[in-house]
Amino acid sequence: MLSIETYQNKFIDFLKDYSVIKDPVNLYEPIQYILTLGGKRLRPVLTLMTSEIFNCDYKKALQAALSIEVFHNFSLIHDDIMDDAPLRRGQETVHEKWDVNTGILSGDAMLIMAYQLFETYDNSTFRALAELFSKTALEVCEGQQYDVDFETRDDVTIADYLKMIEYKTAVLIGAAMKMGAIVAGASEKDQQNIYQFGKNLGIAFQLQDDYLDAFGDPKTFGKQIGGDIIENKKTILYIHALQLSNEKEREALTHLYSLNPKDATEKIKTVKHIFESSGSQEATKQEILSYTQKAFMVLDSLDISEDKKLLLKQFGEQLMNRNV
Amino acid sequence: MLSIETYQNKFIDFLKDYSVIKDPVNLYEPIQYILTLGGKRLRPVLTLMTSEIFNCDYKKALQAALSIEVFHNFSLIHDDIMDDAPLRRGQETVHEKWDVNTGILSGDAMLIMAYQLFETYDNSTFRALAELFSKTALEVCEGQQYDVDFETRDDVTIADYLKMIEYKTAVLIGAAMKMGAIVAGASEKDQQNIYQFGKNLGIAFQLQDDYLDAFGDPKTFGKQIGGDIIENKKTILYIHALQLSNEKEREALTHLYSLNPKDATEKIKTVKHIFESSGSQEATKQEILSYTQKAFMVLDSLDISEDKKLLLKQFGEQLMNRNV
Repeated sequence: MLSIETYQNKFIDFLKDYSVIKDPVNLYEPIQYILTLGGKRLRPVLTLMTSEIFNCDYKKALQAALSIEVFHNFSLIHDDIMDDAPLRRGQETVHEKWDVNTGILSGDAMLIMAYQLFETYDNSTFRALAELFSKTALEVCEGQQYDVDFETRDDVTIADYLKMIEYKTAVLIGAAMKMGAIVAGASEKDQQNIYQFGKNLGIAFQLQDDYLDAFGDPKTFGKQIGGDIIENKKTILYIHALQLSNEKEREALTHLYSLNPKDATEKIKTVKHIFESSGSQEATKQEILSYTQKAFMVLDSLDISEDKKLLLKQFGEQLMNRNV
Repeated sequence: MLSIETYQNKFIDFLKDYSVIKDPVNLYEPIQYILTLGGKRLRPVLTLMTSEIFNCDYKKALQAALSIEVFHNFSLIHDDIMDDAPLRRGQETVHEKWDVNTGILSGDAMLIMAYQLFETYDNSTFRALAELFSKTALEVCEGQQYDVDFETRDDVTIADYLKMIEYKTAVLIGAAMKMGAIVAGASEKDQQNIYQFGKNLGIAFQLQDDYLDAFGDPKTFGKQIGGDIIENKKTILYIHALQLSNEKEREALTHLYSLNPKDATEKIKTVKHIFESSGSQEATKQEILSYTQKAFMVLDSLDISEDKKLLLKQFGEQLMNRNV
């Protein structure tokens, strides 16, 4: 087993050889651009790490890892168009730097290229990877659609919300790890378990993202505290608060979520107070803990050595402490 | 072997069972909408017909045929966004009936669903179909990009143009037929030959589309004569004319192609005259004939009975006479 940092570096080297510009340049240049924008390369690192957890040289998993990263970046391009986002990782988004049509078409090409990356594997591995990929990719589309739908719905339940983040974000974490297991030839049972580990950790991570947006430490969170509240985003904190609050709090909350004040300081303060007093903060904390534990419990059933289980657990803890 | 019409009907029945609406409905409703808009179902019919040419029950090829049709309709949704087209088959386009974001996301889902349709086949067939699909789909994206690029370029050669229509349109016709051959377990050589037959026929068909737009019979062509000229579209007729014309004609042509008159009657008349006098009309006619013959010549090398070769030839002739 290597360190996370080493996997990152090995992956970035591999990526460099992959992202070359060819004709038609207007199709492939944006692809190279988004792929080399940076990021933590969390998903491909998970694929490489998991392959070695199951006793396989990580080099065999590089193509699968890259496929996951290409897919992830495809979804960023198309999501950024849908969200009309000007920036991605501090740089111009593809549709801003080029145009919407370029973003659509280069994204489409990336989705296809992600499948092509499986072509170096033997028939049964190719099939297993492609089937998992299709299932996951379609779930990601469904998750994105639920997310869009939720913006205009006011009857979103906790279960609805959990399903949305599971599909939109968590299944890809699970699939990234399962691909490492598939390439390594791990048993069906281990494949399923490592998928559950990744998926539950992914849900916990996403819930924590909602939580930290309101209650994170401004010094370490990286984003502006209260950003979701400013945008009236119906996060898990908001949905919990609607369910747990008394009528007065609920009325105040829904009213505040219909406003877009220039200075949001007071709004953020009041909303955070309702999150606390209603019990939403606590309920969300418990939910994050519950999904993290769910992930860690799966580790027990894995057919790997104890020190490898410890490694996965430490990785999970680092991820939840945002040190990865 | 069944008739073209019977294959169409069998395919439409199969399609009916496939296109059901599920959650999230805002993702799947547009997919059902575009898939049931109609059309001649040329590509899937080619897959079914080819499977039977190579002695396989067409039923075995239904999933592959549907995959091709789903992909084709995915590309229509995304192309219509890029072209800002309001109508498709006389009905509202997806991004008009819903919105651009819906068109992007539903299209993405269809591209993934097209791959999933191969999952009923055994490992080696699955792989052969998926690899052919990826290669073809990426070429279609490249063709679309070349088409976009050509709009703002004035140095497009005949070779450039032929490559563009080959990628954008013809390879999918070739692939539709090759998929039928793959499912039927035809030899590598037969697979390659039937692909060449479909591809060359596809190029001939597309060139003929350019030709008929200027010189077709208004009664049978279906579209307005001169539509490409009105839009200043650089078709094969235009590119040939630029190359073959004398300086005076060339100047007149490029000048006319910079205008957008309200009443285009005179413009169409003059441009058509230049197409004739420059020799472009004749050169294009010869090119169509040459690609049609190229397609028919491949038939000789196929390892199938003479009456099946005759069937394919008749189909090609029907297609070029626009009776299919």
